[in-house]
Amino acid sequence: MTRIDHTVHVALGERAYDILIGPTLLDDAGPILADRFPGRRYGIVTDRTVAEAQLPRLTRSLDAAGLGYDTIVLPAGESTKSYANLETVIEGLLAARLERGDLVIALGGGVIGDLAGFAAAITRRGMDFVQMPTSLLAQVDSSVGGKTGINSPHGKNLVGAFHQPKLVLADLSALDTLPKRQFAAGYAEVAKYGLIDDPDFFDWLDINLDEIFAGGPARGEAVARCCAHKARVVIEDEKENGVRALLNLGHTFGHALEKDTGYSDRLLHGEGVAIGMVLAHTFSARLGLAPGQDIGRVTSHLKRADLPTTLADIPGTLGTTDTLMTAIAQDKKVQRGALTFILTHGIGKAFIERNVDPDKVRTFLEEMRAP
Amino acid sequence: MTRIDHTVHVALGERAYDILIGPTLLDDAGPILADRFPGRRYGIVTDRTVAEAQLPRLTRSLDAAGLGYDTIVLPAGESTKSYANLETVIEGLLAARLERGDLVIALGGGVIGDLAGFAAAITRRGMDFVQMPTSLLAQVDSSVGGKTGINSPHGKNLVGAFHQPKLVLADLSALDTLPKRQFAAGYAEVAKYGLIDDPDFFDWLDINLDEIFAGGPARGEAVARCCAHKARVVIEDEKENGVRALLNLGHTFGHALEKDTGYSDRLLHGEGVAIGMVLAHTFSARLGLAPGQDIGRVTSHLKRADLPTTLADIPGTLGTTDTLMTAIAQDKKVQRGALTFILTHGIGKAFIERNVDPDKVRTFLEEMRAP
Repeated sequence: MTRIDHTVHVALGERAYDILIGPTLLDDAGPILADRFPGRRYGIVTDRTVAEAQLPRLTRSLDAAGLGYDTIVLPAGESTKSYANLETVIEGLLAARLERGDLVIALGGGVIGDLAGFAAAITRRGMDFVQMPTSLLAQVDSSVGGKTGINSPHGKNLVGAFHQPKLVLADLSALDTLPKRQFAAGYAEVAKYGLIDDPDFFDWLDINLDEIFAGGPARGEAVARCCAHKARVVIEDEKENGVRALLNLGHTFGHALEKDTGYSDRLLHGEGVAIGMVLAHTFSARLGLAPGQDIGRVTSHLKRADLPTTLADIPGTLGTTDTLMTAIAQDKKVQRGALTFILTHGIGKAFIERNVDPDKVRTFLEEMRAP
Repeated sequence: MTRIDHTVHVALGERAYDILIGPTLLDDAGPILADRFPGRRYGIVTDRTVAEAQLPRLTRSLDAAGLGYDTIVLPAGESTKSYANLETVIEGLLAARLERGDLVIALGGGVIGDLAGFAAAITRRGMDFVQMPTSLLAQVDSSVGGKTGINSPHGKNLVGAFHQPKLVLADLSALDTLPKRQFAAGYAEVAKYGLIDDPDFFDWLDINLDEIFAGGPARGEAVARCCAHKARVVIEDEKENGVRALLNLGHTFGHALEKDTGYSDRLLHGEGVAIGMVLAHTFSARLGLAPGQDIGRVTSHLKRADLPTTLADIPGTLGTTDTLMTAIAQDKKVQRGALTFILTHGIGKAFIERNVDPDKVRTFLEEMRAP
């Protein structure tokens, strides 16, 4: 009996889809897929770590349902989001003779979801795909909304497409095997939804943080509330011409720090976002836009999640302020030379500011780097 | 004074655009772009041959209009539509610091249009682009309709996206510098429109073929009529879920032959299409679907254009029938193992047949190979 705790519908017209959330969805994937997509074949894309921990659950279920599939296994890690691996996935899908009507399954975290989703978007000019996110970050953020892509030497996610999945299966038990640091990194994106425009959710997180980390019912509820939040934003602004940019709270600083640390284990994406969110709050306060006291609340909440919150928390030596500024300027969110930042008037009051003075950013960064 | 002989509007709602056809549009591109896209910068993508023949006309015009641009020059030829060159173009656009609102210009034939359009589609998750087709094939076919992509070792155009241009500038004088063989290859796609569903146009071509090759007003009219035809089809079926597949008349056989000859100078795309169209008519007649006499009319018309019409016209030795059948089966138009072909009831009466028996194709190919 398939157990589905929460269903979130992403109402995007002919691109609409469901997000199913439950504790055993990988074990139940076979009948779910057979019911929704009769007569299709599947190309599973995953990484070595997830292949070991979760792939057998999925393939047993597909086998039992009599579904045909091929599997492409990639190395784990952010550096997998490369041109070379994109080619590997596409050529693997073609070698498996998957047709336009067949489906790609992205089984893994954000890296696999972004890469496999992008490969699906451009193989045979567009194949359907299913997200099966196995990390907290992927379940609450990257598997929903259709942003897919790879990294360029010039910056993260600079190559990609908007391509919505046909279905998202978020298996909560997959999170049980996540390293604590990975779970915490994903949690930064959970807290982000509260900080953007939902102070009640942030209060709820403050109360339920321990249970979310321990794995009680609050975990599933947190995932569902994040997905519902993201779905609302994506429905309103699928291609990020406006309000969707709010989801980038903390990401402009975060991307620059990730680039500076070589997309390495020195700083996970969610860790960069955590520091970036604190910086966004602090920068907003410096500009006189936000009350200073919220910085403390944000910082202490993220610290309870064992997340880094300052530049000094990043191991090793950071590049120069010039290097960071170059990375910030290369961000996709630059328009006509002016810097766009997500700033805030306080917790739950983020807004898009399209005319940020680069000199003020530079001065602020210099100050944040000082010991 | 800008001279525009024909304007074709492609009414695709928010993706609508104009095709302008005239003798000096590359010289007039600066003011046209400045008027339609104020405040943008440009990334010109072209190949070495076109850079020599046409690029100075374009850059002089952009310079005079005070427009900023960077140029990326690639090798000429079908093998340019590769993963490696896709990466080169994307990284070039990013290195030039082109932003999401800036425009890519595809200046060249079908190869450049497909490659640059695809790069635009996936750089920063989608940049706008302008087609400036310089070959007959690109002006009447590939620059219109938004199909972009590169080739895979598994087959042509297996990697790509639907991405409509914002404008098409078809400069007729660019065709004056085309080698005769290239012009003839493009002409195969002109004749195709008549063969699909416009017998009056085919009759008109029969009368005007010499003038089209010599460069009189019939040439511009032919380009405009082809663009209008393609625009109608694309408006009706942008993503090729149905009637757009008719435009693939001759292409399933043609693609297999191109693959077999290594996408080389042994067989240009349009030459493959010419042979493919004759094969489609002959195969249809063999199946009792079409009157035999139309084969002769099609063949003699294409011969007048100096196009190859039989397998024996291809220099060198072809692969085995098995190899050709594998290439046919790998074509994007395969669905659930059945072969889809564009067949015909005669000139101007093409139709989509989704259940072609592979054994009959094999037997037919064997017969066509026999001396």
